[in-house]
Amino acid sequence: MIRHTVVFRLKHAAGSPEEAAFLSGAKALANIPGVQAFEQLRQVSPKNEYAFGFSMEFADEAAYRVYNDHPEHVAFVRDRWIPEVAAFMEIDYVPLG
Amino acid sequence: MIRHTVVFRLKHAAGSPEEAAFLSGAKALANIPGVQAFEQLRQVSPKNEYAFGFSMEFADEAAYRVYNDHPEHVAFVRDRWIPEVAAFMEIDYVPLG
Repeated sequence: MIRHTVVFRLKHAAGSPEEAAFLSGAKALANIPGVQAFEQLRQVSPKNEYAFGFSMEFADEAAYRVYNDHPEHVAFVRDRWIPEVAAFMEIDYVPLG
Repeated sequence: MIRHTVVFRLKHAAGSPEEAAFLSGAKALANIPGVQAFEQLRQVSPKNEYAFGFSMEFADEAAYRVYNDHPEHVAFVRDRWIPEVAAFMEIDYVPLG
């Protein structure tokens, strides 16, 4: 199992229709083959600058690559992520030991 | 539910006995009251500087505070975390919507 997470903040104002539209549109990522345990999260620690997170799991690295290269993911990154996200960090986890 | 996560790297060399001892010692955090779904994780994305992550869940903010103030957690931070961790970032999530 590999857990792909990204913590981010948007260019949109908090609570704006644009923010809601981005989050709603991103739900489609859950339907890309191989995506498991898809979560949309609110980041609540005051110790970093981010407001949201997405988390998803893949069976293995190959499944993660299929997602990464999938046309729906590529289009989402191009059409929504790059224009609308102000800052982000990707963190990928595998079980330890 | 609130999910408390911290992504970090150690001062110790990768694969060293000191690294193993830190990770082994940190498993005791799972026994502090209120801690659920405790995970020790390896961070594998090349897009950040961190090597490990811990993740745990609490029923609510009050349970998170009990953990944070618990003497075992306070002692772990003082005796292990501060001396042995080179860099870290805390990320806390709650379900969105």
